[in-house]
Amino acid sequence: MAMLRRTVLALLAAGLSSLGAPAFAQTEPLPSWNDGKAKQAILDFVGKVTQEGGPDFVPPERRIATFDNDGTLWAEQPVYFQLQFALDEIRRLAAEKPELKGKEPYRSVLARDLKALSADHGKGLLQAMMTTHTGMTTDAFANIVGNWLDTARHPTKQRRYDEMVYQPQVELLRFLRSQGFKTFIVSGGGVEFMRVFAEKTYGIPPEQVVGSSGVVTYRLDASGRPDLFKQAKAEFIDDGPGKPVGINRFIGRRPILAFGNSDGDLQMLQYTAAGNGPRLALIVHHTDAEREWAYDRNSPIGKLDKALDEGRAKGWTIVDMKADWKTVFPGKP
Amino acid sequence: MAMLRRTVLALLAAGLSSLGAPAFAQTEPLPSWNDGKAKQAILDFVGKVTQEGGPDFVPPERRIATFDNDGTLWAEQPVYFQLQFALDEIRRLAAEKPELKGKEPYRSVLARDLKALSADHGKGLLQAMMTTHTGMTTDAFANIVGNWLDTARHPTKQRRYDEMVYQPQVELLRFLRSQGFKTFIVSGGGVEFMRVFAEKTYGIPPEQVVGSSGVVTYRLDASGRPDLFKQAKAEFIDDGPGKPVGINRFIGRRPILAFGNSDGDLQMLQYTAAGNGPRLALIVHHTDAEREWAYDRNSPIGKLDKALDEGRAKGWTIVDMKADWKTVFPGKP
Repeated sequence: MAMLRRTVLALLAAGLSSLGAPAFAQTEPLPSWNDGKAKQAILDFVGKVTQEGGPDFVPPERRIATFDNDGTLWAEQPVYFQLQFALDEIRRLAAEKPELKGKEPYRSVLARDLKALSADHGKGLLQAMMTTHTGMTTDAFANIVGNWLDTARHPTKQRRYDEMVYQPQVELLRFLRSQGFKTFIVSGGGVEFMRVFAEKTYGIPPEQVVGSSGVVTYRLDASGRPDLFKQAKAEFIDDGPGKPVGINRFIGRRPILAFGNSDGDLQMLQYTAAGNGPRLALIVHHTDAEREWAYDRNSPIGKLDKALDEGRAKGWTIVDMKADWKTVFPGKP
Repeated sequence: MAMLRRTVLALLAAGLSSLGAPAFAQTEPLPSWNDGKAKQAILDFVGKVTQEGGPDFVPPERRIATFDNDGTLWAEQPVYFQLQFALDEIRRLAAEKPELKGKEPYRSVLARDLKALSADHGKGLLQAMMTTHTGMTTDAFANIVGNWLDTARHPTKQRRYDEMVYQPQVELLRFLRSQGFKTFIVSGGGVEFMRVFAEKTYGIPPEQVVGSSGVVTYRLDASGRPDLFKQAKAEFIDDGPGKPVGINRFIGRRPILAFGNSDGDLQMLQYTAAGNGPRLALIVHHTDAEREWAYDRNSPIGKLDKALDEGRAKGWTIVDMKADWKTVFPGKP
């Protein structure tokens, strides 16, 4: 009730007289977006789906918006941050237990021997991922990720990883929610990894994070206390055609807006765009070598090739980071 | 904005002067519950977790409540309604294509030969389930379930299946949401089946329905239009130890309240009750042979044995349907 009271008081303070005005006329909802086609496409879309009585009105419960994470909500260079986490963890474990230093994958990680780690279909990297992501409870894993976020810094930008998020996207998420949208992450990243920071960083609660996952087992420990144990077995890969499948499984409704940045998002964008009624499909094109990174068709991370062609052919909104974003990371232009 | 305006006007109409009053003093939130231990346990629990500044306060984003469906939110006798759907569908298909009538599982379903259907580890029933639940798109399946709900009637109660829901539970769901809870279904039933009616019947949107699922594949049809195709392969069984696993996977937070009715809910109740801080674990005990059904330890459907013992030993709230519910089904006592 106290919450309700606060809400009412806030509304009263905001001035009931303003209630007849258009939905987002008074404040600039997307200050980090430059005026241009991309921003206009977003504002037009949100305007029409929220206009009650209009031909394109979508009731709030159907205003589902899905966002990829790596390269769409936060950066992904020089390597996916979750892989960076695994490598940092391997180093931390080796420092704690020096007897590990001669063993794989510790030896190659400590030697920064990417060639060795990538050999044999990336066996070493997979070992590093499994070692740091499984064989522990879900609670223990969440604590480890939280500690890493608090101590690790990006190798070239020297920022906390949760400050490597895109300010324009944080504003967009907030704007969409203010207009009755429910915002979801639909990412190839691990669901248990992303849930540690998604709520604080993006305002997206754990139950709205869809991601890849491994097998988890319910156990009672020696004292009869239940826990959930992360097994060394992959279960669901939320990438490519897995994204619409994950959307169906976890959300059960087709989004009306989807935002990606790579070929791994192609099927999510197709599935979203093909629905009836108004739809908005968007792609971040990484064009800003100065403030962020510039890459697309030939990048091993976040390759954008087929989705760029299909997006252009189908009139999806291609966001040119350099031109469309006034600010990239929070706190600096 | 029109919504916001309506909300404000409704609040104004309700009288701002009432805002200082306790949260649920003015109206009876659970009219179909008789006064007694069970109702009091619910009111006490909700009162303390919503009391800001109190020792047991739980912030709204952590007020996760999970409900089993079969036997907890709606009835499950004489057989699970989803199985009844499959049998009804088999009969409908056989009527459409008479050449099927001699084949299994059609022949045994038409003959109501439960013995034949149950033989060989229930091979016939499984065939009936697979035939009616797979080999079609998710959209086609949802339409079929919707048509069935509109035409089928319960064999003994002669009601629509979506009117075989428990009125006290519908009130409880609504009450919890009014107190800032997010309500989820966590059921062994099929997720695609439940999502067809969960929003209208319980006020629970598709993205808050966790259930069993089969493999679904993303496809582009001949015209390049995407769809999702239900394959004849089970993927996730959301029952027993699968329930806390499903909660972790789909919700990512431990509930503070869980409600079940059978041994299939035991692990969900254990997991919920074992969390830190205030927790409420509840079990519907089917004790009302007159208005509903009376069954527990020896029932093949909704067997309640171990969970009843553990619930009593641990002080969980056992709801005695006959004593605690003033009304069972909507519209009659």
